[in-house]
Amino acid sequence: MNTILLLHGPNLNLLGTREPHVYGSTTLVDINAKVITMGKERGVEVVPFQSNHEGALIDKLHEARSWAAGVVFNPGAYTHTSIALRDAITSTGLPVVEVHLSNIHAREEFRHKSMLAPVCVGQISGFGWRSYLLGLEAILGVIEVKS
Amino acid sequence: MNTILLLHGPNLNLLGTREPHVYGSTTLVDINAKVITMGKERGVEVVPFQSNHEGALIDKLHEARSWAAGVVFNPGAYTHTSIALRDAITSTGLPVVEVHLSNIHAREEFRHKSMLAPVCVGQISGFGWRSYLLGLEAILGVIEVKS
Amino acid sequence: MNTILLLHGPNLNLLGTREPHVYGSTTLVDINAKVITMGKERGVEVVPFQSNHEGALIDKLHEARSWAAGVVFNPGAYTHTSIALRDAITSTGLPVVEVHLSNIHAREEFRHKSMLAPVCVGQISGFGWRSYLLGLEAILGVIEVKS
Amino acid sequence: MNTILLLHGPNLNLLGTREPHVYGSTTLVDINAKVITMGKERGVEVVPFQSNHEGALIDKLHEARSWAAGVVFNPGAYTHTSIALRDAITSTGLPVVEVHLSNIHAREEFRHKSMLAPVCVGQISGFGWRSYLLGLEAILGVIEVKS
Amino acid sequence: MNTILLLHGPNLNLLGTREPHVYGSTTLVDINAKVITMGKERGVEVVPFQSNHEGALIDKLHEARSWAAGVVFNPGAYTHTSIALRDAITSTGLPVVEVHLSNIHAREEFRHKSMLAPVCVGQISGFGWRSYLLGLEAILGVIEVKS
Amino acid sequence: MNTILLLHGPNLNLLGTREPHVYGSTTLVDINAKVITMGKERGVEVVPFQSNHEGALIDKLHEARSWAAGVVFNPGAYTHTSIALRDAITSTGLPVVEVHLSNIHAREEFRHKSMLAPVCVGQISGFGWRSYLLGLEAILGVIEVKS
Amino acid sequence: MNTILLLHGPNLNLLGTREPHVYGSTTLVDINAKVITMGKERGVEVVPFQSNHEGALIDKLHEARSWAAGVVFNPGAYTHTSIALRDAITSTGLPVVEVHLSNIHAREEFRHKSMLAPVCVGQISGFGWRSYLLGLEAILGVIEVKS
Amino acid sequence: MNTILLLHGPNLNLLGTREPHVYGSTTLVDINAKVITMGKERGVEVVPFQSNHEGALIDKLHEARSWAAGVVFNPGAYTHTSIALRDAITSTGLPVVEVHLSNIHAREEFRHKSMLAPVCVGQISGFGWRSYLLGLEAILGVIEVKS
Amino acid sequence: MNTILLLHGPNLNLLGTREPHVYGSTTLVDINAKVITMGKERGVEVVPFQSNHEGALIDKLHEARSWAAGVVFNPGAYTHTSIALRDAITSTGLPVVEVHLSNIHAREEFRHKSMLAPVCVGQISGFGWRSYLLGLEAILGVIEVKS
Amino acid sequence: MNTILLLHGPNLNLLGTREPHVYGSTTLVDINAKVITMGKERGVEVVPFQSNHEGALIDKLHEARSWAAGVVFNPGAYTHTSIALRDAITSTGLPVVEVHLSNIHAREEFRHKSMLAPVCVGQISGFGWRSYLLGLEAILGVIEVKS
Amino acid sequence: MNTILLLHGPNLNLLGTREPHVYGSTTLVDINAKVITMGKERGVEVVPFQSNHEGALIDKLHEARSWAAGVVFNPGAYTHTSIALRDAITSTGLPVVEVHLSNIHAREEFRHKSMLAPVCVGQISGFGWRSYLLGLEAILGVIEVKS
Amino acid sequence: MNTILLLHGPNLNLLGTREPHVYGSTTLVDINAKVITMGKERGVEVVPFQSNHEGALIDKLHEARSWAAGVVFNPGAYTHTSIALRDAITSTGLPVVEVHLSNIHAREEFRHKSMLAPVCVGQISGFGWRSYLLGLEAILGVIEVKS
Repeated sequence: MNTILLLHGPNLNLLGTREPHVYGSTTLVDINAKVITMGKERGVEVVPFQSNHEGALIDKLHEARSWAAGVVFNPGAYTHTSIALRDAITSTGLPVVEVHLSNIHAREEFRHKSMLAPVCVGQISGFGWRSYLLGLEAILGVIEVKS
Repeated sequence: MNTILLLHGPNLNLLGTREPHVYGSTTLVDINAKVITMGKERGVEVVPFQSNHEGALIDKLHEARSWAAGVVFNPGAYTHTSIALRDAITSTGLPVVEVHLSNIHAREEFRHKSMLAPVCVGQISGFGWRSYLLGLEAILGVIEVKS
Repeated sequence: MNTILLLHGPNLNLLGTREPHVYGSTTLVDINAKVITMGKERGVEVVPFQSNHEGALIDKLHEARSWAAGVVFNPGAYTHTSIALRDAITSTGLPVVEVHLSNIHAREEFRHKSMLAPVCVGQISGFGWRSYLLGLEAILGVIEVKS
Repeated sequence: MNTILLLHGPNLNLLGTREPHVYGSTTLVDINAKVITMGKERGVEVVPFQSNHEGALIDKLHEARSWAAGVVFNPGAYTHTSIALRDAITSTGLPVVEVHLSNIHAREEFRHKSMLAPVCVGQISGFGWRSYLLGLEAILGVIEVKS
Repeated sequence: MNTILLLHGPNLNLLGTREPHVYGSTTLVDINAKVITMGKERGVEVVPFQSNHEGALIDKLHEARSWAAGVVFNPGAYTHTSIALRDAITSTGLPVVEVHLSNIHAREEFRHKSMLAPVCVGQISGFGWRSYLLGLEAILGVIEVKS
Repeated sequence: MNTILLLHGPNLNLLGTREPHVYGSTTLVDINAKVITMGKERGVEVVPFQSNHEGALIDKLHEARSWAAGVVFNPGAYTHTSIALRDAITSTGLPVVEVHLSNIHAREEFRHKSMLAPVCVGQISGFGWRSYLLGLEAILGVIEVKS
Repeated sequence: MNTILLLHGPNLNLLGTREPHVYGSTTLVDINAKVITMGKERGVEVVPFQSNHEGALIDKLHEARSWAAGVVFNPGAYTHTSIALRDAITSTGLPVVEVHLSNIHAREEFRHKSMLAPVCVGQISGFGWRSYLLGLEAILGVIEVKS
Repeated sequence: MNTILLLHGPNLNLLGTREPHVYGSTTLVDINAKVITMGKERGVEVVPFQSNHEGALIDKLHEARSWAAGVVFNPGAYTHTSIALRDAITSTGLPVVEVHLSNIHAREEFRHKSMLAPVCVGQISGFGWRSYLLGLEAILGVIEVKS
Repeated sequence: MNTILLLHGPNLNLLGTREPHVYGSTTLVDINAKVITMGKERGVEVVPFQSNHEGALIDKLHEARSWAAGVVFNPGAYTHTSIALRDAITSTGLPVVEVHLSNIHAREEFRHKSMLAPVCVGQISGFGWRSYLLGLEAILGVIEVKS
Repeated sequence: MNTILLLHGPNLNLLGTREPHVYGSTTLVDINAKVITMGKERGVEVVPFQSNHEGALIDKLHEARSWAAGVVFNPGAYTHTSIALRDAITSTGLPVVEVHLSNIHAREEFRHKSMLAPVCVGQISGFGWRSYLLGLEAILGVIEVKS
Repeated sequence: MNTILLLHGPNLNLLGTREPHVYGSTTLVDINAKVITMGKERGVEVVPFQSNHEGALIDKLHEARSWAAGVVFNPGAYTHTSIALRDAITSTGLPVVEVHLSNIHAREEFRHKSMLAPVCVGQISGFGWRSYLLGLEAILGVIEVKS
Repeated sequence: MNTILLLHGPNLNLLGTREPHVYGSTTLVDINAKVITMGKERGVEVVPFQSNHEGALIDKLHEARSWAAGVVFNPGAYTHTSIALRDAITSTGLPVVEVHLSNIHAREEFRHKSMLAPVCVGQISGFGWRSYLLGLEAILGVIEVKS
């Protein structure tokens, strides 16, 4: 059975308590549950991980090389600044789908550019917690194509 | 029963014959069939339309105000230049999901910026014909939330 | 009797139904009526035309060379992107007054620059439907100077 | 009876003697007379003031809060540089119509951007002394809407 | 016998009547005649087409896939803005030579950049109607190399 | 006893009447009183001065060389444009603390940059009338270090 | 009794040993002591924390939601690059005062821009260890206003 | 006998007391004396004027139209920002030589660009008080050519 | 009989040995022969010259004033940087056609801009050695028009 | 005996497994061994450390103040973004040589700029694992000069 | 007796024959004669040198170290591009006065910036051949100050 | 036995006499001797060449194709401007190591960018004359890998 890493970047642990007019009131625990459930229905195991530390996210991506078939990744604010995460994605060779709760292209100018998107399979942004489910759907399509 | 406008911009009529290493070999007819089929399974009618004319795409969006509940839109090259289409989306008040076959953020610099994304619900890019199915999934979620 | 072309660009056909907090609730039919009426009072015929197609606007400008003494033009979104309309204005040699319902200089950055203004006689922006009446007033002054 | 402040910025006192190929040969006295006359016809008093001093223009705007219903303002060269005048307009709360003799959008690049336009009701540029009459017409429309 | 599409963009229908100090007094009919004649001498059929509509130019390029061996294209103002035409050229796979009557590199800054040149075989600009004859010469060289 | 110049730039005379959602409802007279009172408690005389004239502010800074030990300066809109005030600060050799009522870094882009900050001791922005008291506190610390 | 988080970013642990011509010779322990002492005098508890890890600073801000009334924050080099800290400040909803020892506006260009300032109450920069005392003063004013 | 206006901009009244490592220790009185003396030797009257007020400098340029044959102008900090002075120079039609004590091209980036130079006869910068004598020499050459 | 200078810039002496996938395998000797032959057929003498020294190319252009009727010039890498060659072309008054083997608009960004094109009659780029023959054709058309 | 810190930034732990066409197949263990061996031959101890955490790299630089004579540092992706590491280098006062396996100046635009280079002794980039040996050689030269 | 190097850059050998509306009709021989004559009157020998070769100008500056007391240099087009000449001036340690016939600040944008001015004593531009005499005057003042 | 070209760009002939605080007091003769000696120890012949002429450096690179196995090149000021040298390196196909005495990344902004680095094997900068020895070491490693 394939395993998918569900990776969450900085401040996403506060989800549901944080700016609900932008991100909605669903918590990270809720989202993880939704994605794990959908994963079960689709026959894959989903392993969630969140950290506010750029280095910890890199470490987790490195570690996942040995057990994950793909990654659904919401890099939060590191989306726009982290070349190190970009290199981590390239290094691991894992297919990564970038997801965002809010429509980053409709927010501040500095959130329009993603340093990670060019090395991801694709990007999904703007659909709240549904972005994660769409992301899982997308990574499953990618894995199916490859296998 | 809800109706969804499936709108395709310039050059997408050549799909499948055009740069298959970038866009794959599926034709527009194939994609329309896939989306219509999925629409039937989900209880919505999907009405496809393609044009190479910016004005015709605007006209179609205007027209759809009276019969569509939402739009899945691949604006092709007009994504990056058309303020007129942006205003058309705002004017109609219809929820629009922007989709792209290729990962526009991984291509030439001038394809990174979308003039339309800030007025769309969200953007999905990089998953080939699956981008359209994810787009339909996404617009259904949006309509469900609103109704 | 002089004839004035009253030219409207993309999405202006939706006027009155479109973002009333920005553009007011007057429809395009209302505006045309007001301008035609004022034209009659001032002894000129006003011929209105609207299209969402950049090419159709160019065609109309070309055609007007043979019968119009001047143009009042709200180019809508094409204001900011169309070098082709700019060249059309230069080619026809007709005096053109650029008008805008909203104050384009107070909106998004990309609406501050007009590609057409440098080849128009002048620009009037920000006075709602009154912008059109001021535009007619202005073009009459221009024609008077020339004749 | 409403009173309108007719405000002129730097170098406009030389009008008629200055670069007639750009600004025409009408003097500032002529223009003031024209606008005052039109004001009388329309039932408003027009009070003209000119200064080359940015501070004096700010002082006058402040003073006008107590007696003016609106302002027709040709800020001259301060259009492009003065944040202080911009703040003065915002502070007074008076409706201001920005006017220019020449078409500033057809001149040097640094004259295309107005620091004041975003806080004015609208902008009229390019019609010589007629710009002032159009400006008076415009401010009367604005006042009418408000009262 | 090979056939060459001779494609003309916006406002070129006014040629000869438009800014003769920039473009000369030869009409589009004259130019088409010259190119057709030279084509006959060189054993190729030349099929001219002009439109002010970006979409119509795209449609024609698509259509020409089935009968043209190459294209001589003066995209006019769309040269500088149209990603859709760029994609159309890439999609058709036809060799295209970009030609301009005037030296675009000697005109306004915004005319220096061509969105199309990177996907054309080459660019010829500045030689009036002779640019078209040089363009035909050039496309014949390209076809010869390929066949 | 040390004397401190309390210098206010353009439009600050309208304080309390001007955009209270941005600047609060305290008037300039109130602020001057608060700072003078605090000055008395701390054993320094505070001399306030306001002008809308850039030149008058420069003149005052020059004059203060002979009697002030330091300056608390809210340059208002001149913050972002005045090289002349910058040179005036450098010329006088007086220590200057730049203060702002609102958080200039959270407002329009053009208010983020201060032409004066690089030649001031430091900058305090965003605390309403308290910015002035913090500014007095700061300049006293600076003077203490120097003496 | 209110509690204030006194947060220090990267390299500030070396204070007093590091570039004394820029930052002075006071150590971080000295500064903490000064701020705690002043806090006692003003009836608030001050809890200091320093880390070189961006993630640890985010974690601490999150944690402080449950016990702090406000934050005095010297983000050091992360000031200019960290969108993640910016989001952390927004997420926690705590009032934050940004402080800097040196005048960041007088140093290298890349230190002029703060990514955090737009979401802080205000910014104080350039007064050495006094910046922290002014920061405490400022946050107390903010809390007083809110309570 | 020709008269030359010797115009000095902001802060130049402090000359000799201001940053001597940049501007030398000669005072403005000294410089005026030197230029007047040289003027006498060359048969022209030199009339000096200094102001920190941009408006006063404009007023003086306007006034000089009736009595001056040319201007030697050190605009100080207004060099880099004042479009109003630029327009004043154009309006008066007087030949102006721009002079600077220091080499403005060797100082901060924002001092490299002169808004006035394009409308002056020429620019002399970097020779201390000698710049003024060279400027007088230059304006005499210009007048000689014209007369 | 007219004489044409055929001028080649830096590194073109290595042609045929240099990056054949970009420039083809024809040598400079081959190209010179082709152009000379075509010149003979058209009744003009073609005089080739190549140098890697910018100064030598300038010297040659100066010298050619006395004997050449026009220039076909491939400036190589100096195309993008040399204002001195630009001035040389302007100084000599000779008509110059700029040619390039490769399509410079399809290569690195820094090769898109030509410093010389604005002072040349026109530019031909992208047709390999045929660019030179087209260039000769073009300069002959130019000379014919002038004579 | 001198000790050298051999510091490796993010993702370098994957070396040899990561994009071998860019970085070669040598692992980090191999490189450390090579540098330690060369260090022994040259009479210095080399202490390697790698982390994906920016904060951990800063901590290590701080710690090394007490025992290292110099640093050979490959900052990986943090090269281009980390002002915090830049400040850490300045704070410690240790001489640092920046090394890169690949030629960063030949890769993506955003890798051309190093935030660290201006505070390092020098930079060596492009020689694979040899870059480290050259870096050790270089730091030994620097230490020799200082001692 | 002091000797002054009078150095002329590219294309200045054509002076008098080149664009007289910009540069006048005086030849380089005329200018050299004027400067030499004025030199004699002032007791210095003037040695002129012109080259179109950047390298030859550098060589001459190097050589002049042994015999020249200063340099009057019109670098022509190399003004705007040559870092090598900038380094040559720094290397020689000779005082250099930069002169230009035309007012470079009133010409094309790319002529506004001088790469050399920051390392010259000063710059004189816009006075035709008089610029050279003013340049000699200026360098004599510089030498006098130093000796 | 392999031969290495040791190439020096403009102004390096003055080394040791030029700005010793930046470049040290070692002369070019000294450096050549050091590199030749090290070459002998390593079994390669080192052939030095210096010129201030860009063209002469290109000529030498061309010539070296027939006898050199690699190049150690300090391009001096041409580093930042010469596309012609870049093309020369590409044309010759020789491996080139770019070296700099000073740390170019720590100097003026315009020295940070190298036009040559992208086509060199790598870059070494900042170690004084040791940069050359490191450069020789580096080129030997490169040749060893290739042979």
